[in-house]
Amino acid sequence: MNYLKKVVIVGFCLYFPSSLIAQKHPNIMLTSQNIDAVRKGLQEYPLLQNSYKEVLKQADKALGAPISVPVPKDGGGGVTHEQHKKNYQNILACGVAYQLSQDKKYAQYVREILLNYAGQYERWPNHPKSNPSNPPGRIFWQNLNDCVWQVHVIQGYDLVFDAIPAKDRKTIEEHLFIPVLKYITVDSYETFNRIHNHGTWAVAAVGLTGYVINKPDYVEMALKGSDKKGKAGFLAQINELFSPDGYYTEGFYYQRYALLPFILFAKAINQFQPELKIYDYRNGLLKKAVNTALQGTYSTGHFFPINDAIKSKTFESDEIVYAVDIAYAEMGGDKGLLSIAQKQKKVVVSDAGLKVARDIAEKKSQDFSYQPQWIADGKHGDEGGLGILRYGTLKEQQCVLFKAASQGLGHGHFDRLNILYYDNGTEVFPDYGASRFINIETKGGGGYLKENNTWAKQTVAHNTLVVDQTSAFKANLKAAEKHHPELIEFKTTDNIQVVSARENNAYPGVQMLRTTALIKIKELKKPLLVDIYKAESATEHQYDLPFWYKGHMVDASFKIAAVKDNLKALGDNYGYQHIWLNSKNEIPEGNGYITVLNSNSFYTTTFASAAPIEVKLVSLGANDPEMNLVESKAFILSQPKAANQTFISITENHGGTDPIAEVTNGANSSLSSINIQNSDAKQTTFSFKVKNKTYILTLNYYDKNNFIQIK
Amino acid sequence: MNYLKKVVIVGFCLYFPSSLIAQKHPNIMLTSQNIDAVRKGLQEYPLLQNSYKEVLKQADKALGAPISVPVPKDGGGGVTHEQHKKNYQNILACGVAYQLSQDKKYAQYVREILLNYAGQYERWPNHPKSNPSNPPGRIFWQNLNDCVWQVHVIQGYDLVFDAIPAKDRKTIEEHLFIPVLKYITVDSYETFNRIHNHGTWAVAAVGLTGYVINKPDYVEMALKGSDKKGKAGFLAQINELFSPDGYYTEGFYYQRYALLPFILFAKAINQFQPELKIYDYRNGLLKKAVNTALQGTYSTGHFFPINDAIKSKTFESDEIVYAVDIAYAEMGGDKGLLSIAQKQKKVVVSDAGLKVARDIAEKKSQDFSYQPQWIADGKHGDEGGLGILRYGTLKEQQCVLFKAASQGLGHGHFDRLNILYYDNGTEVFPDYGASRFINIETKGGGGYLKENNTWAKQTVAHNTLVVDQTSAFKANLKAAEKHHPELIEFKTTDNIQVVSARENNAYPGVQMLRTTALIKIKELKKPLLVDIYKAESATEHQYDLPFWYKGHMVDASFKIAAVKDNLKALGDNYGYQHIWLNSKNEIPEGNGYITVLNSNSFYTTTFASAAPIEVKLVSLGANDPEMNLVESKAFILSQPKAANQTFISITENHGGTDPIAEVTNGANSSLSSINIQNSDAKQTTFSFKVKNKTYILTLNYYDKNNFIQIK
Repeated sequence: MNYLKKVVIVGFCLYFPSSLIAQKHPNIMLTSQNIDAVRKGLQEYPLLQNSYKEVLKQADKALGAPISVPVPKDGGGGVTHEQHKKNYQNILACGVAYQLSQDKKYAQYVREILLNYAGQYERWPNHPKSNPSNPPGRIFWQNLNDCVWQVHVIQGYDLVFDAIPAKDRKTIEEHLFIPVLKYITVDSYETFNRIHNHGTWAVAAVGLTGYVINKPDYVEMALKGSDKKGKAGFLAQINELFSPDGYYTEGFYYQRYALLPFILFAKAINQFQPELKIYDYRNGLLKKAVNTALQGTYSTGHFFPINDAIKSKTFESDEIVYAVDIAYAEMGGDKGLLSIAQKQKKVVVSDAGLKVARDIAEKKSQDFSYQPQWIADGKHGDEGGLGILRYGTLKEQQCVLFKAASQGLGHGHFDRLNILYYDNGTEVFPDYGASRFINIETKGGGGYLKENNTWAKQTVAHNTLVVDQTSAFKANLKAAEKHHPELIEFKTTDNIQVVSARENNAYPGVQMLRTTALIKIKELKKPLLVDIYKAESATEHQYDLPFWYKGHMVDASFKIAAVKDNLKALGDNYGYQHIWLNSKNEIPEGNGYITVLNSNSFYTTTFASAAPIEVKLVSLGANDPEMNLVESKAFILSQPKAANQTFISITENHGGTDPIAEVTNGANSSLSSINIQNSDAKQTTFSFKVKNKTYILTLNYYDKNNFIQIK
Repeated sequence: MNYLKKVVIVGFCLYFPSSLIAQKHPNIMLTSQNIDAVRKGLQEYPLLQNSYKEVLKQADKALGAPISVPVPKDGGGGVTHEQHKKNYQNILACGVAYQLSQDKKYAQYVREILLNYAGQYERWPNHPKSNPSNPPGRIFWQNLNDCVWQVHVIQGYDLVFDAIPAKDRKTIEEHLFIPVLKYITVDSYETFNRIHNHGTWAVAAVGLTGYVINKPDYVEMALKGSDKKGKAGFLAQINELFSPDGYYTEGFYYQRYALLPFILFAKAINQFQPELKIYDYRNGLLKKAVNTALQGTYSTGHFFPINDAIKSKTFESDEIVYAVDIAYAEMGGDKGLLSIAQKQKKVVVSDAGLKVARDIAEKKSQDFSYQPQWIADGKHGDEGGLGILRYGTLKEQQCVLFKAASQGLGHGHFDRLNILYYDNGTEVFPDYGASRFINIETKGGGGYLKENNTWAKQTVAHNTLVVDQTSAFKANLKAAEKHHPELIEFKTTDNIQVVSARENNAYPGVQMLRTTALIKIKELKKPLLVDIYKAESATEHQYDLPFWYKGHMVDASFKIAAVKDNLKALGDNYGYQHIWLNSKNEIPEGNGYITVLNSNSFYTTTFASAAPIEVKLVSLGANDPEMNLVESKAFILSQPKAANQTFISITENHGGTDPIAEVTNGANSSLSSINIQNSDAKQTTFSFKVKNKTYILTLNYYDKNNFIQIK
């Protein structure tokens, strides 16, 4: 821990009060002093009005159905799981509805259902569907969901606090909330004190509850860990889970998820203990984290699905609605956030939502400013990071995510120097994400499937180099956590955006160096994706560089003769056992191209290698007895045996086809003949021809001032 | 030919003038007497204005580029192909631009490019990329495209006629149009006299040209065939290619395509020879054909892709823009057509387009009325047909296309009693359509691929019964053209829509009878898809009933143990050679279910068979050396050996998952335990349970009054 952080934490210790002052209700997202303003805003600002309508609809639906608090039984997606989830959403919705309508029936619902929980909770043992992979909950199969439940329920309780008789409050607090607090802090001691997103939900649940039911002791534990020494708890989590650039080490999917308890608990801290100046903590880290989460999306709003990630997730998710509203209304976020709120089509019905809806109604919104950038990883910002390259309008945005980050804890994938490529609003070279059908109970209880380990995490599932058909670090988490890639260069100009990084530990004795750039040249409308992947070793290896692609291959420089029958798996381990080898093509000259038609537009990847290579055309699905894997296809540039190998590829988006008008244009790439002139530890030089113009591109790996030259 | 038609054609013979009267220009879509009104409409009606802007943009782009009339060289999608295509579009655009702007530069462009064609055309031999599968063109690889070219070019010429000096008109007519007419009518004599969509383009090209350059002889040939006896030509085509219900025997994709020359030539006939009353011909057949084409789309606008069809085709295509505009403006089409025009986002800049745009601006538009209906096939309406079942709003429309039509000429598929099922705006049980990458030259010149014959046309590529792993009629076109299925029943009520048909000739000695229904029951929000497929024979056969599905299978009543390695083709002929057998599952009890997650909604197919069956889970791609086949998956209900077999299945759409909110509901089907009580030649009776209610469904195959009973 560096000096600065010590000072801050000491500061927090000094200021921490022995009893809490601000005992007003409600006092989290919607606060007593702003109720009237929000109520007025409902009449004036369409986004707030529509958002409230949704809340009211849910609240009324809750009131229309019998209260159901089933004994916990089912896993993710199952009936009791979904019922308890619905219950916490209903409790929160009814809380908001009560405050804004002042109709006591909503408060009455919350009182009744909480009394029902209070009558049962203490009798529930650990959930019957809990399993050793995750700490158990009592309401849900994992503790995490219990904490999420509590984060929502306590807000609902805060909203109806004044409408519940003191006697009932006593019952609810003594037989539900205090037992929940104990379950989280004592039974789940390790999770509560863990520096991890599950820990964040745990401390948020405990801290929020501590504020609302006035138990400062629990608040202090939430902020500083069970022993109140600051090595665990909320502040330690802010220090350790985020990089100085606001990147959450598990990746964007989990960053989104973790943001809600971070942001929400911060908001509560700011309400109950404004003197702690939590928004300023660590140079305004939480505001940065919100911006970084948004920068971690493609222009469609989808989060870059690195590590374990559900690919359909976008910034429309509720967590980001909270994050955007609070960042804009309370942390001084800029007007680009308003355009995100517009795409979210809702706000949190709250003080913050009021401001967002008002400023949108007053036409203050601006386009969110996506920026090419290097996002450092590691709590000190020195453990590699992510390079994001972007050009073009929101509609046609061309974007590369270059992953040179650290392992990212247990949800991390073994994908050092992986790239994801997007263009024209779609994936071109995708990441598989996680192997998981979230909340589909019939698919492994909605959790991670075994193919998440055998396939999704393995190196070959990504667009990066695989050595000897083995995953980086032999897919060993502990080994992988010891090392991170090293940034060589990140630079953006009007015509070149480039990122380059080195990884020397993934495979013993192999130095890997990848450089990826988007380069605008005057002959073409859109930038080229240029990729130079270099491996060096004293001994010979097999080097495979897969490009997983979307669309359908429509042309290649070589004649394809795919396997007709008896399709075989490409290997027997490290994900290769899941790959069908459809076609193996010798490329003695080392050069060639592949054209893919994707969303009615062409993408030609022209590739070159100084030595002969093979191109393997593959698809996913071998050794998948339960048919869990999702259709995927790749071409793999493969060097069967060499000590050193450089793969160069240039991908051009060109032309397109309109199947309704039945018109095709620009079906041929303008690019031809990549020639490698040299590639050694210091420098790579090659030429390529676009139309009739020959370009020479040089990378000087040790010369930051002249890292990339093109002429 | 029946009496009525004879009379009509005799009528046409009597009225046919020896020389044409109406020699005004322009006089096809945009007519001289309406120019001022259209010009005024451009200022007033947004749809017309925007459509004209597009025309003007294309015309200005044409003027900005050098004129290019390359010697024909490339196949579909290639450079010269696309250039000649662009040229005819430019000629038409410049013609319209000239008339509405009165700027001579546009007419000058048309003059120059046509003189250029006139200077070369006669020297061009048959196209070098022509092949025996289609009659050759000179400008394009097939004659068809030459005719399409001429249909467009002659309209452009008509529009600038008065602006071209007589000397140049002489050159253009003598060295381009007359040679084109001769090429179509003499060199391509057979196509010109063929009752086929290629023939329609040919007669439209010749007839339109005959009108515009005042050659009545060619017009008469176009109307009545080369020998002017009426056995060929336009009128014969209207008689023979359409059923009385306005169905074009090749299927909807080709109906769309054929409609343009039908409609456009009819419009010209109506302009030049209004006394022929062409719109009234055969009881207003062409108007019916437009409506039937639209009824042949799903609510997304996609044509049902039966037979050879490009699946992305929608009613937004230009042919349907013409059809909708003319049907509305000239044939008394109803206001539902306006809503289609709105979705097309354009009109033809023309007399008809003016009316459409005006009435939309005047808010006369209504939703297009999709109707469940039986569409008879065959020129007399007695050769089977298509049953369309539909329930629900445009957004959630549930729709079944049941194909019991005749073969549909050379583009027909061997798919008797096939069903396509759509729901919630997406395909559930799709049809593969054609195996073709249209206009992608690298894929077989953009034409039909060999897999179109070996896969797409074969029975197993469809959702219908396959006997002994052989296609219907052994995939022999001539044999298939001799027979058509027989309609048993088509009926729609508020709660039941049912279609039933028999096919006794597809497989010798096997009687096939399929009944498909959408049934609303009060326990469920949405109708159930109920399907009863019965096969009877004196001898034993293998019966396979595939359900090709979209989405991912997430549950089944049986334990799946998919092939891990050495994936094998399911057979060696009739399309089975292209199918990978992923998993073979014994179902000794004959009953079970499969649940698929498709577009975040669940579809459970509960199936039953009186005798044990197998379920084969399969995917597409074996024996596909050039990787032409597109990802597809199916479950096949398979009876390995039996004389008689009844497959019953009920597909329920239930619940859904929201991957952004991470909420799942209704993941389990409400349906359970189908029990077959009896199934013989006269009757099938079975029960099924929904929630706690048991229904008994009876089909009485020989009792029309009580065909389907449910209680």
